[in-house]
Amino acid sequence: MLEQFKKHIQKFICVSDEEFVEIAGYFQVETFKKKENLLTEGQFCKASYFVLDGILRKFFINEKGVEQTTEFAVENWWMTETFSYINQIPTEFYIQAVLPAKVLVIRQKAYDELLEKHPVMEKYFRCIYQKAYAAAQMRVKLLYEHSREELYRQFLKNYPAFLQRVPQYLIASYLGFTPEYLSEIRKKNFS
Amino acid sequence: MLEQFKKHIQKFICVSDEEFVEIAGYFQVETFKKKENLLTEGQFCKASYFVLDGILRKFFINEKGVEQTTEFAVENWWMTETFSYINQIPTEFYIQAVLPAKVLVIRQKAYDELLEKHPVMEKYFRCIYQKAYAAAQMRVKLLYEHSREELYRQFLKNYPAFLQRVPQYLIASYLGFTPEYLSEIRKKNFS
Repeated sequence: MLEQFKKHIQKFICVSDEEFVEIAGYFQVETFKKKENLLTEGQFCKASYFVLDGILRKFFINEKGVEQTTEFAVENWWMTETFSYINQIPTEFYIQAVLPAKVLVIRQKAYDELLEKHPVMEKYFRCIYQKAYAAAQMRVKLLYEHSREELYRQFLKNYPAFLQRVPQYLIASYLGFTPEYLSEIRKKNFS
Repeated sequence: MLEQFKKHIQKFICVSDEEFVEIAGYFQVETFKKKENLLTEGQFCKASYFVLDGILRKFFINEKGVEQTTEFAVENWWMTETFSYINQIPTEFYIQAVLPAKVLVIRQKAYDELLEKHPVMEKYFRCIYQKAYAAAQMRVKLLYEHSREELYRQFLKNYPAFLQRVPQYLIASYLGFTPEYLSEIRKKNFS
């Protein structure tokens, strides 16, 4: 389990085996059932999650009471609700396990201590946030550029394996249309 | 000029006057005319920009040949095209001065050297990217949650001073509607 995280870290920074053991001490492995919430609207987000196995999603409940998925995290991705986390305000989001998930958790206090004791991790998280920001920037571009149907086709082309793992209604929720509409598009695509 | 940047840095990290002088050596002050491009589609983005004075915007040209603004940066904000920057691929965006702009520029090589020589700056950029990611996450939420007209009303409420500084057609471009439609909404708001 921790070997997987070590490999991920070593893509960005050099840490010795001894230092990694110390770093790993700031994290806990936790498991979540399918549809279990890691974070609920109104809570203060005080942790970050690294997916070892499974899929997480972030969503909010819109004015019509419908769940709107804004983000997924698969293996080796981080997920947290950064806005609540850094501003210390209640979150407007949920984080939920899409599939049974095994997750490395680091709580805010441990995160601050980790960065103080092991400043090399500043570089690691700088790289992680830089990548996350780059992805979010492209996401905004896609949302402006394409119709919902085009987004689905792109998704289908770029992430076929992911689409196999995630229930259709969540893909619909991510792309911002109803499950019925997704079902129509799928019929068109496969006919 | 550099005093402004020093103050900004000191919101996130502690640096002595001596270290700041060394850090500042990695940056250049550059000025750009109104509508001058700092980055053009197809180029490799190899610099990051910190706005000392003026406003920058990021946009792409959509399939219809229309400029679609995705981001603004005012004083004390960073702007770069992170996707091109970290993946070393040609950018799909433009970065342009909305108003005459004075900008601190750090080129990729200098950035890498700065972080190597002054690892305290890893923390600074980790915080910057963390904030940028948090803002982008909320941006995606807003794009899903609100109609274009609601987005304009929110913008009007939250950033009245900004709206005074930026031409209306760019606000329209940011919110994803035509200048004519914006003009209609404005009439409704002020009538």
